[in-house]
Amino acid sequence: MKAPIYFLFLFLWFAKALQAQGDVSVTTFAPGVIKLSFGKPDTFAPYNFCTEKPRVSEMKDVAMADLPFVLKDVKIEVNERGVQVRIPLNNEEQLYGFGMQIGSFEQRGLRKRPIVNDHPVSDIGFSHAPQPFYLSTAGYGVLVNTSRYVTFLCGSNQELLQQTSESNAKEGLKFTPEELYAQQSPKHSAVWIDIPNAKGVELFFFQGTTLKESVQRYNLFSGGGGLPPLWGLGIKYRTKGDFTQDDVLKMAKYFRSHNIPCDVLGLEPGWHSNSYSCSYVWSDKFPRPQAMIDSLKGMNLRLNLWEHAYVNPRAPFYSDLKNLSGNFLVWRGLVPDFVNPNAAKIFADYHEQNLVDKGIASFKLDECDNSDITQGKATWGFPDLTKFPSGIDGEQMHQLFGTLYAKTLFDIYKKRNQRTYFDYRSSNVFTSSLPAVLYSDIYGHNDYISMISTASFGGLLWSPELRDSKNETDFIRRLQTMLLAPQAVVDAWFLKNTPWFQLDRKLNNEDVRYEGADKLEELVRSLFNERMSFIPYLYSSFYDYYEKGIPPFRPLVMDYPADKKVRPISSQFMIGQNIMAAPTTMDSNARTVYFPQGLWFDYYTHQQYEGGKSYQLNIPFDKLPLFVKSGSIIPVATPVNFIDDKTVFDITCKVFGSNPSAFLLFEDDGTSFNFQKGNANLISLRVANGKGSVERKGTYKDRRYVIKSWEFFK
Amino acid sequence: MKAPIYFLFLFLWFAKALQAQGDVSVTTFAPGVIKLSFGKPDTFAPYNFCTEKPRVSEMKDVAMADLPFVLKDVKIEVNERGVQVRIPLNNEEQLYGFGMQIGSFEQRGLRKRPIVNDHPVSDIGFSHAPQPFYLSTAGYGVLVNTSRYVTFLCGSNQELLQQTSESNAKEGLKFTPEELYAQQSPKHSAVWIDIPNAKGVELFFFQGTTLKESVQRYNLFSGGGGLPPLWGLGIKYRTKGDFTQDDVLKMAKYFRSHNIPCDVLGLEPGWHSNSYSCSYVWSDKFPRPQAMIDSLKGMNLRLNLWEHAYVNPRAPFYSDLKNLSGNFLVWRGLVPDFVNPNAAKIFADYHEQNLVDKGIASFKLDECDNSDITQGKATWGFPDLTKFPSGIDGEQMHQLFGTLYAKTLFDIYKKRNQRTYFDYRSSNVFTSSLPAVLYSDIYGHNDYISMISTASFGGLLWSPELRDSKNETDFIRRLQTMLLAPQAVVDAWFLKNTPWFQLDRKLNNEDVRYEGADKLEELVRSLFNERMSFIPYLYSSFYDYYEKGIPPFRPLVMDYPADKKVRPISSQFMIGQNIMAAPTTMDSNARTVYFPQGLWFDYYTHQQYEGGKSYQLNIPFDKLPLFVKSGSIIPVATPVNFIDDKTVFDITCKVFGSNPSAFLLFEDDGTSFNFQKGNANLISLRVANGKGSVERKGTYKDRRYVIKSWEFFK
Repeated sequence: MKAPIYFLFLFLWFAKALQAQGDVSVTTFAPGVIKLSFGKPDTFAPYNFCTEKPRVSEMKDVAMADLPFVLKDVKIEVNERGVQVRIPLNNEEQLYGFGMQIGSFEQRGLRKRPIVNDHPVSDIGFSHAPQPFYLSTAGYGVLVNTSRYVTFLCGSNQELLQQTSESNAKEGLKFTPEELYAQQSPKHSAVWIDIPNAKGVELFFFQGTTLKESVQRYNLFSGGGGLPPLWGLGIKYRTKGDFTQDDVLKMAKYFRSHNIPCDVLGLEPGWHSNSYSCSYVWSDKFPRPQAMIDSLKGMNLRLNLWEHAYVNPRAPFYSDLKNLSGNFLVWRGLVPDFVNPNAAKIFADYHEQNLVDKGIASFKLDECDNSDITQGKATWGFPDLTKFPSGIDGEQMHQLFGTLYAKTLFDIYKKRNQRTYFDYRSSNVFTSSLPAVLYSDIYGHNDYISMISTASFGGLLWSPELRDSKNETDFIRRLQTMLLAPQAVVDAWFLKNTPWFQLDRKLNNEDVRYEGADKLEELVRSLFNERMSFIPYLYSSFYDYYEKGIPPFRPLVMDYPADKKVRPISSQFMIGQNIMAAPTTMDSNARTVYFPQGLWFDYYTHQQYEGGKSYQLNIPFDKLPLFVKSGSIIPVATPVNFIDDKTVFDITCKVFGSNPSAFLLFEDDGTSFNFQKGNANLISLRVANGKGSVERKGTYKDRRYVIKSWEFFK
Repeated sequence: MKAPIYFLFLFLWFAKALQAQGDVSVTTFAPGVIKLSFGKPDTFAPYNFCTEKPRVSEMKDVAMADLPFVLKDVKIEVNERGVQVRIPLNNEEQLYGFGMQIGSFEQRGLRKRPIVNDHPVSDIGFSHAPQPFYLSTAGYGVLVNTSRYVTFLCGSNQELLQQTSESNAKEGLKFTPEELYAQQSPKHSAVWIDIPNAKGVELFFFQGTTLKESVQRYNLFSGGGGLPPLWGLGIKYRTKGDFTQDDVLKMAKYFRSHNIPCDVLGLEPGWHSNSYSCSYVWSDKFPRPQAMIDSLKGMNLRLNLWEHAYVNPRAPFYSDLKNLSGNFLVWRGLVPDFVNPNAAKIFADYHEQNLVDKGIASFKLDECDNSDITQGKATWGFPDLTKFPSGIDGEQMHQLFGTLYAKTLFDIYKKRNQRTYFDYRSSNVFTSSLPAVLYSDIYGHNDYISMISTASFGGLLWSPELRDSKNETDFIRRLQTMLLAPQAVVDAWFLKNTPWFQLDRKLNNEDVRYEGADKLEELVRSLFNERMSFIPYLYSSFYDYYEKGIPPFRPLVMDYPADKKVRPISSQFMIGQNIMAAPTTMDSNARTVYFPQGLWFDYYTHQQYEGGKSYQLNIPFDKLPLFVKSGSIIPVATPVNFIDDKTVFDITCKVFGSNPSAFLLFEDDGTSFNFQKGNANLISLRVANGKGSVERKGTYKDRRYVIKSWEFFK
């Protein structure tokens, strides 16, 4: 960390260097965050909607270095087309980011268009959670503070002026479309950014010495990572869309009587008297909702409600919202102008009084992305030309809609000093502080694994749901992945019985029990318990997200910047500071696992693996595919079936290898924001002279953890 | 046709009605073409590049009616987003157009983005030849005179203000993604047009009493349809990309010695010393190009050369063009700024002196569209943010590039009073006068059939190439379709031997002869001859394209506006005034054929079919699937193997049904533009009292046709 005087120096130097370009201003916005402004900035730039303050003090603790280019070499032009930016790129740099990406991981050589879309196609960048933000292995991030649809040419094209003598060489003839249209990777290139229709631009540069530090700085700049309530890290189960009140209660009893962990039940569209668009009023399938909520509470189950933001004429607040909505409808429902605080207030007040006050623990915010922009017949989303009373157009609203919608409802809980954990289907930049996971209807298992990594570049959390399965192997592999994610959720929105009762959708809804159902139920119970045993570890990892900006789930490239072999790996990822996951899919029971530098242990068998090498490993069905760094202390809990305000975890500290680093276990009430005012403990787990020690610091008086024992593996 | 005073009246009335909207001007630009201007028009609007004069006199002969809406109900707004237009739409209207479309035919209910793209996906409108131009069954067309990327909402979305009481009805619950995301078709809707970044707009309204008349008017406004040389309607064969001069001559001799019709041989990239990008210089595979051209000429074969417009550093005119090109390269080649007349001249002069003067009959203009905008790794095209010396940006240049490129080379031929027939891979609006066919690397046979129809809405011609085949049936079905198109071409660019020598690509290139090759060759000869027999009919149909704007190949919806059953049909199409084609694919040897009103004949068996009905028909392999309207005279030629300046066709007039309409056979030199100065004949073929009569009118002295006999089928 450099001293503040350094920033001042930087600022003066950059400001001078950039004078030649005219209308440029450069400010150091926060420690390690340089803002470059040019021309007239956007009114609806996403940072304008970030209500979290930068965590300046924590940002100072994250290392940084100079950018690998000087800012005067960032070329910006404002003209009739809009704004174009050229940012230097070294031949050695690999790029990541653009939000939660599906079709690609390494982004160099690609044209990326991070545009919100419900159906991610190919590698172009259309996604539920697109971001005009990329990160480089050279240890910096570049964010364009705009809600417009932007194109990034990630070193994918060659400029006339960069033509070198090499190109005079005679080319061999090419005779297949694959050869002719092969991806171009010119050596002398740059990142070009195309922002049509803009009159100016704000660029944020996030410094670091590594990519990970740039991510940390970005997350801390956005307010730090959101800390879910403790119960949010348990198991969620979403019931069938047409379930009645009695069906829901029956399912709740199933979990408790069968001793299968579950913390949250989720209701799907059928709870609304009208959905698509939504009425936000209980349907006649739920004649006594309060009684149901209370019954569930009695079973220590929290209730999550599905909705989207398109307000049906039957919604009680429809008339109030009519003049504060876009001029196009979605499923005949109003599109609230969430940019307008009055619209947000009408929407939030109704939710607070009629749902949150009644005990609803969280929401699932569906359809807040956009209908597939690559299909002409997909037109449920509001058009890009939609006009909203606040002045924002449909294009910019699409990029912001999921974020504004989630914030509108999250603020209810924040005001009540009550934590929550949302599902939402769209996000944008500066949202790391939102305790919310993304989900999708795409269901490719390999994609679901890699999205855990891609989400993490931009302060996002991805929830790979378990729905239906092609066969038992598919079920188990998806189950494993789902349990190794920021949220563990079974989404049975079209299944009458649990997916493990019957894998086949049709037979499931006909109550035909699968012959292997008992065995699968036992496996589900056992693997759910594994997830529950990691909750203290996960919770502490989320605290690192909050406090240091370190994503709790992240690709290896963040932790091993010097190892070029990890750059393309998106099928393995880090969980917290010490654990690496390597899930597989139904396609193969064995997989190649690459171990970065150091020594590694199989979490269960304690088999050791040498770093810098790849191993072909069988991935068992009955465990989670987890590996632990040598020199780690992993606090493991005795599993519980649910987490309530009084839950105390019995902890076994598992120590892998010698000279382990200390582990800081985060302890608080698990449900309020009091930790932000210091009402929390950090429990240092240490090993010295072959013996474990526990030191608790902090002002939180209750106990969440009892350290019961220590186990050592060498 | 109404009198000119009517236009004046219309103009005054519209101008008055539109005053309220501000900056609007309405002019009747040409008979039945209303131009509505608003704000500051685009500098690079496509009509600015249309050098053809409207065929005013011919346009007056095309019927028209008032638009079904008043222009004051066309709402236009210019704001920070750009320009938005709202055009009324009646519930009964179906919409067509947007250029050559692939994934959809009826466009109502869709969001269309007619953007140039080499890989058409889905039904969104990305295409080789996109057009901001739609046509309605209500008998009008609307064209946005812009080269920007535009979105059309074709009655696909519902506005808040159009919300009716219906929407208060309770919705049933929906539980599948298909149900939830089903296409919306609100009744009370409009066409919305979104033109981001524009400062104004010009809308052209093409009037008609039917859709067909609007198309005719559009084509005549664009200069009328392009008339290919007579030889252009014969057979073209493209040889393998790496063929040498000797290989080409050997293939030429094959056609002549085996008595298989062929008029044009095409060379692929290998003729360039450098291709991808191109040098436009003969490679060492062609040591004596002039000798080859002359030898081919001696065999009555014309030569077509493949190229694209990306100029390799090894091209002799590279240096001259360097400062007249875009600031990004494509395959390391310059992108000429064809908007700049100097760039076009350098490009054209080189071609004229080094290729056209040497005897090259035509060109194939490849890659003038854009790399797939839905794939991040597809980046060979110049970026949308490319800057050109003329001031046009990459986005607008993409929409215009194919058109400007083709015009640049076509003008060489026009100056020489020599007709040609190009292949090109991209076009835009106002190009009907270009004698050029579009082609594609997509190879879906059903798509290939429907594109014959979709191209025709916008003055475009589509050439469904025959390349490789999955099996014999696939080969024959594709062969039939290829022969029923504006150009008949076998594209064997990756095959050493003819496709009928061996269907399998690998075996073909290993010289392994297919066991059924003799039989297939006989079929090819026979069906090629069928094509050759229709050349007088096709040539006269193209004359109707030139003179009346009637597309020679067009969907049934153009000819049968009163029959709603034809609206969705894109698998059958009209050829000329009297023939309907109904090809099929390898998927089925039988198909449903719908016959519109009237009586119809099978062209070969003379089997009769009643109009207004569908029949399930077997489609034979050894004939072309053609049906003739009762009351038609079809001039059929004795097939020839090639067409040269002296070819005289022996004609049999086939008369189908009673009281046939006259047929006008167009006669000229077949190769020059002298017909435009009246040096041509129209031969009236008539039947009276059961006997045929022939009346030739015009100033063309030579003879192209001898009417040998008449045949009557009733």
